[in-house]
Amino acid sequence: MIDDRMLPVAELDKAYLDRGLYFGDGVYEVLRSYDGRLFALDEHLARFERSLKDILIFDVDMADIRRRVEGAFAACGLANAKLYFHITRGSEPRNHLPRPDLEVNFFLTAEALGEDVKAKTQGVAVWTHPDWRWKRCDIKSLNLLANVMARIAVQPKGASEAILVNEAGQITEGAGSAFFAIDGKEKALITRPLGPEILPSITRAMVAKVAGNAGLTMVERAISPAEALACDELFLAVTTKDIVPITRFDGQPVGRGAVGPLCEALIREFAAFVRAGRG
Amino acid sequence: MIDDRMLPVAELDKAYLDRGLYFGDGVYEVLRSYDGRLFALDEHLARFERSLKDILIFDVDMADIRRRVEGAFAACGLANAKLYFHITRGSEPRNHLPRPDLEVNFFLTAEALGEDVKAKTQGVAVWTHPDWRWKRCDIKSLNLLANVMARIAVQPKGASEAILVNEAGQITEGAGSAFFAIDGKEKALITRPLGPEILPSITRAMVAKVAGNAGLTMVERAISPAEALACDELFLAVTTKDIVPITRFDGQPVGRGAVGPLCEALIREFAAFVRAGRG
Repeated sequence: MIDDRMLPVAELDKAYLDRGLYFGDGVYEVLRSYDGRLFALDEHLARFERSLKDILIFDVDMADIRRRVEGAFAACGLANAKLYFHITRGSEPRNHLPRPDLEVNFFLTAEALGEDVKAKTQGVAVWTHPDWRWKRCDIKSLNLLANVMARIAVQPKGASEAILVNEAGQITEGAGSAFFAIDGKEKALITRPLGPEILPSITRAMVAKVAGNAGLTMVERAISPAEALACDELFLAVTTKDIVPITRFDGQPVGRGAVGPLCEALIREFAAFVRAGRG
Repeated sequence: MIDDRMLPVAELDKAYLDRGLYFGDGVYEVLRSYDGRLFALDEHLARFERSLKDILIFDVDMADIRRRVEGAFAACGLANAKLYFHITRGSEPRNHLPRPDLEVNFFLTAEALGEDVKAKTQGVAVWTHPDWRWKRCDIKSLNLLANVMARIAVQPKGASEAILVNEAGQITEGAGSAFFAIDGKEKALITRPLGPEILPSITRAMVAKVAGNAGLTMVERAISPAEALACDELFLAVTTKDIVPITRFDGQPVGRGAVGPLCEALIREFAAFVRAGRG
């Protein structure tokens, strides 16, 4: 029964029987291109392969996935594209334990990606929210309800991202982004160490590569919201927008409430890194 | 792109753009009928309504849902049916923050449900697994990957259910069932108190109603796997099978390794409760 319409199960599109829908039983990636070139494709494919293994999907040919991603990118004809793709364990009548011979489903979308100049130059507001996610946030899975709920909850406060805080009172990451703080005096770029509580963000890894060029040293440690607010600059890192400065945090101005010089330096260095065809 | 096929987004069935698939952004129920009568419909609808509100979906007419469930049950013509239904936040191009005017998707399946006589008379084997689920397990959401992974992980050990154990070393519940222990000497029926770590199981509530008739007193407390193994009898409670005795736990026999007399008494009392048209 779809809304008010009843029909035999045999007439359903396989999407209605997708374990991705019943259980979030799948993993995904989002990657982008800059000026006609896919960015960090190898890194995204490597993470995707790890995610698949971690959820016990073992029979995917990664060369096939690469071919599909490259083929879709070529076919879409977009110089600056956002590519989303996922694999789910397959389609079958609902049952927690999958059929052993089930074939996975692959799905990909390509769309044009513009640059959010306003966010980059004026910064964004964020608000904290309890981190209700599961204990394997290192897996990029389709179980994202806690992320969605956090985003919906902070939106009426004018926040474009939720900063998730765990039971220990420490920031883990953004609901859809990595989180960074800058101590200007120490020239320290502070972010949480990798582990099961956060996604191994590709943009985080790319930011780490350009930090030195911006005069910053990476320091991996967890911080609380109060420590974050005491920092000079804060920013988000996310594939679709790379570096996004945070100028308001829980309703308070960050630093002087404007995009800071070290964030600007990082944005410049990141752009140079991309222009040089690296990543 | 669906597997190897590329097509314009406008040609996609709305199921491919379902937020249930991208985010597990929805909630569900499973209910059953016994001999032509839906069991505990009010309780399932009340829990469904709570789940919807908890994930911030507010615009669903519950009278409409009741009409659909009753209509589908009447139309399927099955005396002993299993009905599954879910609501997701709707279909749209993927974006964490939903469009404000989005319409929810409703989906229901009905199928024949047989009685698993073997499980009831011989019992089942279970195995413990870390509880990796999120912090709002009281919501019956489509984020079930941790449950699926646990079930897949214990299956090679011959276990038909995974018993989830949290970081405190205490049992929360089964991956797809409530968990009960019986202390025969004390005539105590032990189960974890309700809270964000477990689903408010309808079958658990029904078991509580018949416990007295079986000479048992409900004691709500959390126990460890070692404490469970020291108990005389263990069982699972789940809508589709009501009470399922556990005869092996982590490879060890439970009690004398056979279905015990207090479990048998509970099964009898539960069946009498159903026959009396209660619930």
